[in-house]
Amino acid sequence: MGRVITIAAAQLGPVPRAEQRGPVVARMVALMERAARVRATLVVFPELALTSFFPRWAIDDDAELDNFFEASMPGPETQPLFAAARRLGLGLCFGYGELANRAGRLQRFNSSALVGHEGGLIGHYRKVHLPGDREPQPGFEYQHLEKRYFESGDMGFPVWRAFGGVVGMLICNDRRWPEAWRVLGLQGVELVLVGYNTPLRNPEAPEHDPLVRFQHRLVMQAGAYQNATWAVAVAKGGVEEGQPMLADTLIVAPSGEIVAYSKTQGDELVVAECDLDRTQSYKTTIFDFAAHRKPQAYSRITECTGAVPPP
Amino acid sequence: MGRVITIAAAQLGPVPRAEQRGPVVARMVALMERAARVRATLVVFPELALTSFFPRWAIDDDAELDNFFEASMPGPETQPLFAAARRLGLGLCFGYGELANRAGRLQRFNSSALVGHEGGLIGHYRKVHLPGDREPQPGFEYQHLEKRYFESGDMGFPVWRAFGGVVGMLICNDRRWPEAWRVLGLQGVELVLVGYNTPLRNPEAPEHDPLVRFQHRLVMQAGAYQNATWAVAVAKGGVEEGQPMLADTLIVAPSGEIVAYSKTQGDELVVAECDLDRTQSYKTTIFDFAAHRKPQAYSRITECTGAVPPP
Repeated sequence: MGRVITIAAAQLGPVPRAEQRGPVVARMVALMERAARVRATLVVFPELALTSFFPRWAIDDDAELDNFFEASMPGPETQPLFAAARRLGLGLCFGYGELANRAGRLQRFNSSALVGHEGGLIGHYRKVHLPGDREPQPGFEYQHLEKRYFESGDMGFPVWRAFGGVVGMLICNDRRWPEAWRVLGLQGVELVLVGYNTPLRNPEAPEHDPLVRFQHRLVMQAGAYQNATWAVAVAKGGVEEGQPMLADTLIVAPSGEIVAYSKTQGDELVVAECDLDRTQSYKTTIFDFAAHRKPQAYSRITECTGAVPPP
Repeated sequence: MGRVITIAAAQLGPVPRAEQRGPVVARMVALMERAARVRATLVVFPELALTSFFPRWAIDDDAELDNFFEASMPGPETQPLFAAARRLGLGLCFGYGELANRAGRLQRFNSSALVGHEGGLIGHYRKVHLPGDREPQPGFEYQHLEKRYFESGDMGFPVWRAFGGVVGMLICNDRRWPEAWRVLGLQGVELVLVGYNTPLRNPEAPEHDPLVRFQHRLVMQAGAYQNATWAVAVAKGGVEEGQPMLADTLIVAPSGEIVAYSKTQGDELVVAECDLDRTQSYKTTIFDFAAHRKPQAYSRITECTGAVPPP
């Protein structure tokens, strides 16, 4: 019974800085083929799956920077992913650098694509919560320049009817922000797909480093529970260009429980059967939003950006 | 260095239905005296600390219902708590049923009081998120009639400067709602005091019963971390009038880590030294709201009450 789908979270190991699309796409197609063998409905890849996590470097040359972006989706180099989705009858989600052209103005976004099992683009999401800095920080071994390379997403937090349910996407740092989850929850989301690249060391606050895995799990589990949704978090893991990254790919139930997680730091498929009807026992009781929410008490959330302590 | 305060979370065991205020207040004063001996700055009691958790019963008689409420705060029976705070130099927080009179109209709220170490009322909070039902549910061994007995709080989520920091309060079910935490976070909160009465069995959704403790910890830890605040959750535990209640009183750091928790189901003091300056390493980096929040993407949170799935 229920609306059971099999989800394959496809963790990727490191991608070198100089890697071309071909070898990465081949690794992704190999994981899709393994996902098809376990009869997955959907395979989910990490944030910026096609390249190295380039915001760790200060890159001044525009042509070099553009190498990390896709000017069309699908494009000539990503077409094999769409073809594999069609051939294998698999849904697909993956992150990429999006180079958009709005009326002649180039825009760069940190995006993720959702592809149906017939190989067509269902939609895409542009990351809203960009962490890090606009300017390189002196003395940091690795930078985190997402605010430099990307604009904040301008599409809000859309959902789509897909794979028998209501599906939304978040990217990396978005998962730490309960507002992002709640906007999806208010659209009845049943499955949230989250790709990430999370370094194990943060030079801005090294005292947080021992807690990276704990805090990652905490926000994924809370976001799933408080919005009564399945959630999938998919890592780029391993040591990428010398920088150690959190792996810990997760599949989380609407109860907040982790039902599957990765055991390695590299390319790995994490699979779980997910009954989308399991969202209902929370959506109709403790998290029946219509019965219990009080928006008139929440106005600061949309009226304020920063914290304003009392005088 | 830092702004270190010692917090004593004063868990209470069961309070019988017929108990008068005197014996409960005496138990609370005894815990305050123990808190003073460990040089606590502040002692925190549970939701509806002065009485049994009466929303478990359908009570039709108004006079009987009024017995569970306080018409003034302090009143003759609660004055000893304020006197003990003054005598011991202890701050104090406790939950109570508030009977308010607004221009001749009686209103009932599920409230908590914040008292300074000079024994004066600093302020009070009225619970916003009332769980449960308006009407008794047939076949339930215990009811949960908070929506029947209380109005939703009409004061929002205030904070106060107290005990060297910025302090807010939530009550029980409020802790499951990230909006409540965020409104406090947007006021720079550094310490959130949460009293609760959480039954271990929920006849509305018995499939959630094995997860009561896990989900309680999850929301407390996520609320603390995502708002970079200390948080204290204080239970009424044990088997009260035949109904088993979650104990698991907690003190949670701004990292999301639990630093202290109760070991019994009864009257127990859980103590931790809390450096309010530890909030800063999160408030100024990953949760620097001014740098990272995007309110224009959050409009559904205040525009919608219930979830609206796509067509």
